[in-house]
Amino acid sequence: MPLDPKSRTIRIILAEKGLPAKLVETRPWEDNPKLAQINPALTIPVLIDEPPTGGEVTLSPTSVIAEYLDEAYSHPALLPATSARRAEARRLSAWFDEKFDHEVNDFVPREKIDKRLQGRGWPDPERLNRGAGALLWHLDYLTWLLEQRHWIAGEKMCIADITAAAHLSVIDYLGAAPWDDFPNVKEWYARMKSRPSFRPLLADRLDGFPPPSHYANLDF
Amino acid sequence: MPLDPKSRTIRIILAEKGLPAKLVETRPWEDNPKLAQINPALTIPVLIDEPPTGGEVTLSPTSVIAEYLDEAYSHPALLPATSARRAEARRLSAWFDEKFDHEVNDFVPREKIDKRLQGRGWPDPERLNRGAGALLWHLDYLTWLLEQRHWIAGEKMCIADITAAAHLSVIDYLGAAPWDDFPNVKEWYARMKSRPSFRPLLADRLDGFPPPSHYANLDF
Repeated sequence: MPLDPKSRTIRIILAEKGLPAKLVETRPWEDNPKLAQINPALTIPVLIDEPPTGGEVTLSPTSVIAEYLDEAYSHPALLPATSARRAEARRLSAWFDEKFDHEVNDFVPREKIDKRLQGRGWPDPERLNRGAGALLWHLDYLTWLLEQRHWIAGEKMCIADITAAAHLSVIDYLGAAPWDDFPNVKEWYARMKSRPSFRPLLADRLDGFPPPSHYANLDF
Repeated sequence: MPLDPKSRTIRIILAEKGLPAKLVETRPWEDNPKLAQINPALTIPVLIDEPPTGGEVTLSPTSVIAEYLDEAYSHPALLPATSARRAEARRLSAWFDEKFDHEVNDFVPREKIDKRLQGRGWPDPERLNRGAGALLWHLDYLTWLLEQRHWIAGEKMCIADITAAAHLSVIDYLGAAPWDDFPNVKEWYARMKSRPSFRPLLADRLDGFPPPSHYANLDF
């Protein structure tokens, strides 16, 4: 799904590594025997790799796809070099894929986008408010990290930046990111957004959900 | 927490690798400034490693601790050798830590144990029923895996077996595992339970929650 943060994470990783991929849009809530067959957990994204050595490798969930891609296609490496730094990068990726996902995505993007695509009506303002409040807390945490580091897990761009930017890109598409109150997060996001790997995401459009004018602007 | 499945996963990994650890019981729902300081996500377990090279490395969540331990203390390896097999082991660990956790643990162990420890009264029978139903589905899935493989992710015992057994050990402690209906899962669990790394878990007791007599019996 174009606006699914976890699918976006994998699209960015593939682009950073220069790996071409065929995208197949899949709505996990729809009855989908093909999805059930390749991922009985019924989550997206799923990656089917065709490695140079032959055969097919079917991969999910997101964190497992990311580890696999960094092992099997190691250049450029998207995990840091030492075990301690790798742990910090993984911790922050899990932070976004689990904590941010439950506290923000369930209350803002899924409330706005998935509910509409599922024909379940308009977003519930109380849920949107709850998600917006949680978002401020997460942006405060990112601010604190970026006061100590040039990238969110250390001195080099890594999987944690990709995961965080993928999640925030969906919030930004919905015009729900209060960038001006979080200048160093905005500056970091502008750096991520300028990467060629991000470009395809900035071209995504969803019917009935036009993004704000700054969404695709690199100098927003 | 003695009966937390994710804490149990890490205790087994440490024991498999012969790494001594000091256990500090922490209830994540209690106001706990020390936990907030070492893990702002406020989840357990958290591991503070003191590597031979000096310093301290603070690690969370569970999947990140497991990856770190397998990298930093590589013998015996608990992840398979190839990227594709590692991905399958990680997929099944994530299956238990995410899917089983949301579908079963939230409805059985947390409903029975955490609710009581939190002084929130008796378990809700409807929630227990829902968890028991989901458990059958997960045991069916394990049966299907074990019809094709000697261990759940392949031909060698790995992190996926440890994670799955840690989760099921809590269900078993509560007398909620219908072993006789799932003979090959029972046989696999008996193999896991017989490992020396499992012994400390079988000695755990929680006040007011005596385990069934078969819990610590290796030939149950």
